[in-house]
Amino acid sequence: MGVVNKKNKQANMKLHTVKGYLWVFVNALIDNPAFDSQTKETLTTRQASFGSTCELSEEFLKKVSSSGVVSNLLSWAEFKLNKELKKTDGTKKTSIVGIPKLEDANDAGGKNSDKCTLILTEGDSAKALAMAGIGVVGRDHYGVFPLRGKLLNVREASHKQLMENAEIQNIKKILGLQHEKKYDSTKGLRYGHLMIMTDQDHDGSHIKGLLINFIHKEWPSLLKVPSFLVEFITPIIKATKGKAVKSFYSMPDYEAWKESLGGSASSWTIKYYKGLGTSTAQEGRDYFEDITHHKKDFVWADDKEDGEAIELAFSKKKIAERKDWLTNYQPGTCLDQREKRIKYSDFINKELILFSMADLERSIPSMVDGFKPGQRKILFCSFKKNLVKESKVAQFIGYVSEHSAYHHGEQSLASTIIGMAQDFVGSNNINLLEPRGQFGTRNAGGKDAASARYIFTRLQPITRLIFPKDDDVLLNYLNEDGQSIEPSWYMPIIPMVLVNGSEGIGTGWSTYVPNYNPRDIIANLKRLLNNETIVPMVPWYRGFKGSLKETSSKATGVTYTITGVIEEVPDTRLKITELPVRRWTTDYKEFLESMCPIPI
Amino acid sequence: MGVVNKKNKQANMKLHTVKGYLWVFVNALIDNPAFDSQTKETLTTRQASFGSTCELSEEFLKKVSSSGVVSNLLSWAEFKLNKELKKTDGTKKTSIVGIPKLEDANDAGGKNSDKCTLILTEGDSAKALAMAGIGVVGRDHYGVFPLRGKLLNVREASHKQLMENAEIQNIKKILGLQHEKKYDSTKGLRYGHLMIMTDQDHDGSHIKGLLINFIHKEWPSLLKVPSFLVEFITPIIKATKGKAVKSFYSMPDYEAWKESLGGSASSWTIKYYKGLGTSTAQEGRDYFEDITHHKKDFVWADDKEDGEAIELAFSKKKIAERKDWLTNYQPGTCLDQREKRIKYSDFINKELILFSMADLERSIPSMVDGFKPGQRKILFCSFKKNLVKESKVAQFIGYVSEHSAYHHGEQSLASTIIGMAQDFVGSNNINLLEPRGQFGTRNAGGKDAASARYIFTRLQPITRLIFPKDDDVLLNYLNEDGQSIEPSWYMPIIPMVLVNGSEGIGTGWSTYVPNYNPRDIIANLKRLLNNETIVPMVPWYRGFKGSLKETSSKATGVTYTITGVIEEVPDTRLKITELPVRRWTTDYKEFLESMCPIPI
Repeated sequence: MGVVNKKNKQANMKLHTVKGYLWVFVNALIDNPAFDSQTKETLTTRQASFGSTCELSEEFLKKVSSSGVVSNLLSWAEFKLNKELKKTDGTKKTSIVGIPKLEDANDAGGKNSDKCTLILTEGDSAKALAMAGIGVVGRDHYGVFPLRGKLLNVREASHKQLMENAEIQNIKKILGLQHEKKYDSTKGLRYGHLMIMTDQDHDGSHIKGLLINFIHKEWPSLLKVPSFLVEFITPIIKATKGKAVKSFYSMPDYEAWKESLGGSASSWTIKYYKGLGTSTAQEGRDYFEDITHHKKDFVWADDKEDGEAIELAFSKKKIAERKDWLTNYQPGTCLDQREKRIKYSDFINKELILFSMADLERSIPSMVDGFKPGQRKILFCSFKKNLVKESKVAQFIGYVSEHSAYHHGEQSLASTIIGMAQDFVGSNNINLLEPRGQFGTRNAGGKDAASARYIFTRLQPITRLIFPKDDDVLLNYLNEDGQSIEPSWYMPIIPMVLVNGSEGIGTGWSTYVPNYNPRDIIANLKRLLNNETIVPMVPWYRGFKGSLKETSSKATGVTYTITGVIEEVPDTRLKITELPVRRWTTDYKEFLESMCPIPI
Repeated sequence: MGVVNKKNKQANMKLHTVKGYLWVFVNALIDNPAFDSQTKETLTTRQASFGSTCELSEEFLKKVSSSGVVSNLLSWAEFKLNKELKKTDGTKKTSIVGIPKLEDANDAGGKNSDKCTLILTEGDSAKALAMAGIGVVGRDHYGVFPLRGKLLNVREASHKQLMENAEIQNIKKILGLQHEKKYDSTKGLRYGHLMIMTDQDHDGSHIKGLLINFIHKEWPSLLKVPSFLVEFITPIIKATKGKAVKSFYSMPDYEAWKESLGGSASSWTIKYYKGLGTSTAQEGRDYFEDITHHKKDFVWADDKEDGEAIELAFSKKKIAERKDWLTNYQPGTCLDQREKRIKYSDFINKELILFSMADLERSIPSMVDGFKPGQRKILFCSFKKNLVKESKVAQFIGYVSEHSAYHHGEQSLASTIIGMAQDFVGSNNINLLEPRGQFGTRNAGGKDAASARYIFTRLQPITRLIFPKDDDVLLNYLNEDGQSIEPSWYMPIIPMVLVNGSEGIGTGWSTYVPNYNPRDIIANLKRLLNNETIVPMVPWYRGFKGSLKETSSKATGVTYTITGVIEEVPDTRLKITELPVRRWTTDYKEFLESMCPIPI
């Protein structure tokens, strides 16, 4: 049973299933047996009284494993799993119940089903937009179903995840998809076309990719059916001047137009439409009236090229290839939005790659200033606001979200600000913001910081020495939706990524940089300036009283072991006066308690 | 069984328990009985073949209910419940495991336990402050345990809630409290004193009240033990001028001081310390060095007065009394912070009442402008920012939280802004903000609004006509922590509470006002101005195509029944073209589906 479950993690094999596939003949001699009756059919001597036990040898078990039993059980398991998946198959019928958010096309599942398009939207607000739109094209041939956030990456999903994923099951049901069926047309489906409609941002691209990945993994044949999978695009920018409105579907198009106008571009009012929700119901109707301009077909050009591109982006087996793919990314890459047909490989290599790059940028700090974008936005705003007098953190959060296009919610902003101001052992070696109030302690690793509305902060005087004001004009300030925001990076006078360290996990890569002593760093910088050889540095945490020892040195880097301080005190007790860095007191006490066999 | 469970909702009586208390003699005649053996001990004829059933008469059941069985069972149930509560009793022992967040006093549970004080703090950050503080007074006699938010109101809690509430159980365990025990000293406890330390705001008062309520309900005798329950207060304002620091423990004290200084008060820097987290670790140490100044004893003056005051604030049975209590509230009421001893009745009537009033203000709109404070803050900020050009809602949220001391999180702010801009049927009759993008539809009752970072808004031109700029100088602007914020109310030219309606539930009261037609309101206002009699108005929702009919008229108000539009179409089908107000399409479809016996 264990062997089968190991070979097929989804199998969930039970003992009684194995029994059905295996006969065991036992030749046994029992001393003084007792039976229930004269016919001696059932032995009543208990196993414990046998006097011997039957241990099966390793070798014997190996032989059983290599017999046909295992492969029989494996194929049985697969059969069972497939059967389960088939249970959730859709069928071609004219009406569907149990999916309240679905707006079914009137002709879906009927004789005109091939003319029907199911619009999958990114969220409920986009559904509202699509609903306004199909008010124009009519509900006979258009249905709408809103997706909730990101679709599951089915390529890596377990059988259980697939079965329990309401989104996946609903799409199967709405389209009438059948497990393992090969489709050469959409005749057997409730809809002839599947249209994906997402926001014009990186997450939108990811959702399109996840949908393509889902269909490709489960029904690769469907992707080859012409016009089955299509997308609906909306403008990313609209320029208005009096009654004239110009729509742009990609940033390069817009930039080119702006350039072509020269100075007169400023007489146009520019509005960014990154979310589908930015468009009003009227705009939704306008888009659908001109649906041919907003619809694009995905096309399967080549088994090798398209199939491999999709796997490259989503398969666990392609991690190394994915790294290469991202390393070879060329800034400025983008999908030509004038093309009416999009090759899957082009979508992956020219649109989805931008999502992966953005994901990396979010999670891995810049080596230049040691910041992730969130931290950089906060520093930018504290310079912009000239935060030399203390400000309530809650108010500063308001300022940051107003002035730096911060998208990830107030909670995450609060914890980033608090993190930049923390100064307990194991946090920052040089905290750029000053903590005034409870910003957390070693007791709970900073999680015991007070609410943002109770604490205050301001720039540390040293911050402007590390990030000199004179450098501000040299920086390349970014622009989001027309708003000038933080620079692509700051240029601190010492490498801050070493001073305060950094951690993060992105697509393909992750990072872990420990903290170093600013004095060591400066000494090395001086050596560099004087053309001397720099000396290796060991990590250093301000205020840490324990020790740090190099324990191994590999090609990938050096490993250190950090030790706290413990001493024996009389009375057979131990006194711990220092814990290793980032081992927090409350957690450690819990750990000690868990080792106590009896309450102390 | 049902009778017992009704009389004691906590009893959770099972059939088999009742069996143990009740003998039933049945005299029955069975036609053609069959037995398992000659001894006729067990009847094998199945009940279904008996030919008759034994129905017990109402009267008979009533007699059983009034017999001793019920009261026996009731006392058994109470005994069982008490036994369960006793299982979680604490004991006086020197060390406790399983509560990782507890910092136990070294002498707790030992022979000096009566000298020990357990400090309960409001949250983890306050614990960090208390920890800094007990670094000064030493850990022998002080322990710290952080509360997570609000303690359960035990007076209304079920047995199950009590048993499952980790906080309650932990406090019992840490103090060594025993269920139903009468205490005349703290000898049997692990700590001699319980000190509560909360933020200097309304929620802090509520937490103190809930703790008092808990002890009073479970161990009323403890509240009479002198110095058992104490509180630790921290300054609410500090004024600094050079090296001089003055601390104030109540707003009136501060106001009086400011007045006494006349114009020279402005030379002092004022900082508000509403949260414990506002204080730094150093300030925490300073407070504890001077602990006698920061500690106040609660005193039990009078069984009647104090006991009744606590019940008035927390008992379900005292709703009417609570209403009177709040109605008789005098603005300016506050606890004299110079007193070293606080009577429980004074705490309830002079401190806790402020929390209840604030809770009411949050939930019930002002009749003058129809706003709750959140909405008023948003209008204030849109005037302050002069929001005539459209702004991204996410950015406006940042502005509001920076400029109006909004405390309840970005999500709640976003939904309030979106709510003020919605214009679909059933939302606002006059939306003060303009919705640009997807602000939600009737499909999902507005829940399908897009994310705040995708949508835009600005003031409707009509808003400044309803709230004229000329009135701005007449308003009474509030002040929070030195920041000038929204007025106590606006003065719209027509009663906006009637135009857009309002809903809310507070302490003791709730409100429901339907929407009315602005034209009806204006006509009535004109009548009023001309000394004519006003005419009764019926609710009105802009764009609603259904009908509204008065169905009853009572002293408490008129009841209306709102009906949508439904028509019969050929083919025995019904066509619904309008739903009643605030019945949303998706919910309604779900409701219809739930009534379908077979899938359509």
